[in-house]
Amino acid sequence: MLIPRSHPRATSLHIREKLVSGYKSGLVVEEGLLAHGRGEMFDYLIGEKTSKYALKAIKAASETLILAKSPVISVNGNFAALCPKEIVQLAKVVDAKIEVNLFYGTEKRKRNIANVLKKNGAKEILGLDPKHSRTIPKLDSARRIVDESGIFSADVVLVPLEDGDRTIALKKFGKKIITFDLNPLSRTAQTADITIVDNVIRGMKILINYSKKNIKKKNLSKTRFDNKKNLLESINLVQKNLWRMSHA
Amino acid sequence: MLIPRSHPRATSLHIREKLVSGYKSGLVVEEGLLAHGRGEMFDYLIGEKTSKYALKAIKAASETLILAKSPVISVNGNFAALCPKEIVQLAKVVDAKIEVNLFYGTEKRKRNIANVLKKNGAKEILGLDPKHSRTIPKLDSARRIVDESGIFSADVVLVPLEDGDRTIALKKFGKKIITFDLNPLSRTAQTADITIVDNVIRGMKILINYSKKNIKKKNLSKTRFDNKKNLLESINLVQKNLWRMSHA
Repeated sequence: MLIPRSHPRATSLHIREKLVSGYKSGLVVEEGLLAHGRGEMFDYLIGEKTSKYALKAIKAASETLILAKSPVISVNGNFAALCPKEIVQLAKVVDAKIEVNLFYGTEKRKRNIANVLKKNGAKEILGLDPKHSRTIPKLDSARRIVDESGIFSADVVLVPLEDGDRTIALKKFGKKIITFDLNPLSRTAQTADITIVDNVIRGMKILINYSKKNIKKKNLSKTRFDNKKNLLESINLVQKNLWRMSHA
Repeated sequence: MLIPRSHPRATSLHIREKLVSGYKSGLVVEEGLLAHGRGEMFDYLIGEKTSKYALKAIKAASETLILAKSPVISVNGNFAALCPKEIVQLAKVVDAKIEVNLFYGTEKRKRNIANVLKKNGAKEILGLDPKHSRTIPKLDSARRIVDESGIFSADVVLVPLEDGDRTIALKKFGKKIITFDLNPLSRTAQTADITIVDNVIRGMKILINYSKKNIKKKNLSKTRFDNKKNLLESINLVQKNLWRMSHA
């Protein structure tokens, strides 16, 4: 589809095309397109750039992933469609496992996602072999399945663009949760330990760069991070932008 | 797809299913699913109910449609998927023509939309016969085509869920524009003469009921309506809701 350069939302439209093409190649489901639309709206409200509050969360996320014993990056269709290369890069830099974990899961879609990640350099992808599946409590059937050597035994899980129910269940199951969520009010955003309120395409690149620097440090330690406070700052930013945009 | 009753967003998920089913039956395109997602987010921010500012705009819209000489309801895929019955009802009550008018138009999708409207009782659907097509200036190819006895010669056009470029072109072409747009900051919302910041499913029902009452009045006149002011009120409402939701 041809996007006129003059269109005020050209960048956003190009990102959207990645998702639509992910949909057409069997990575993304219809509900994922809708979810992306909701994200687009909040991206628009935060000004379509990485805020200083997002940077703070990215910093905390980078330290937490590097200092984790068994970090896992949980990948769903939208995440894979938007930044497959960055997923593989981050996993390498912070030495994390990659697990495919879907809300609306079919074996075929899981394989499609795994293939895209492999094309982008991933060696091992968890979440595909039913022999290694375990369940996390307090979640309905399909969504509770995780890989025994992945999310099941992880201490830290990066679950971007995640549903609230699953985030809450993972948290109750004792995992430390890092997420990307453009809606600072969502249940996932409010439940996670570290919420990066940013577009994954922008935020993942920064997270990788931070982590490349952090990994070289001899005595890396965790900076204090207050997720609730940081989320309130993001909400304030949205309020300010609403005012600014409506008085332009 | 089974939506758990306990899900906090069950109503929104049910509306979403109408759209996904409209997608599967060839009414809606991928971009329409994304656009709906953006609308969902603003619906969430206005509290998922019709505000008093939306009611004010609906009142003005009803009077304007009834007092128009040749009102036209412009129908795209999302609008047809969400409330086909209401489109036909409103057209009957206010004596408006119905025209199919698409951003991403194919003949097949136009026919699918026309068929759904006919199934819901519509007699005449404009916008399907290329022999009657005319163009509005200042718009690129596909989107500028309108029906000569429909939008081309209308004085008032209801164009819900519309793209900014087209709304601006219609406005410049001298049309009085009424729209439904959940984003009070969008170019469509800001350009229209009357913007109803509400979910079309909720708002159309109210617009029909208002119009049924208005049509019986002997000396119906237009109430003063300031769209810019009303939009600012909707934005204030979003800001208040953000504060409320973040301090719950």
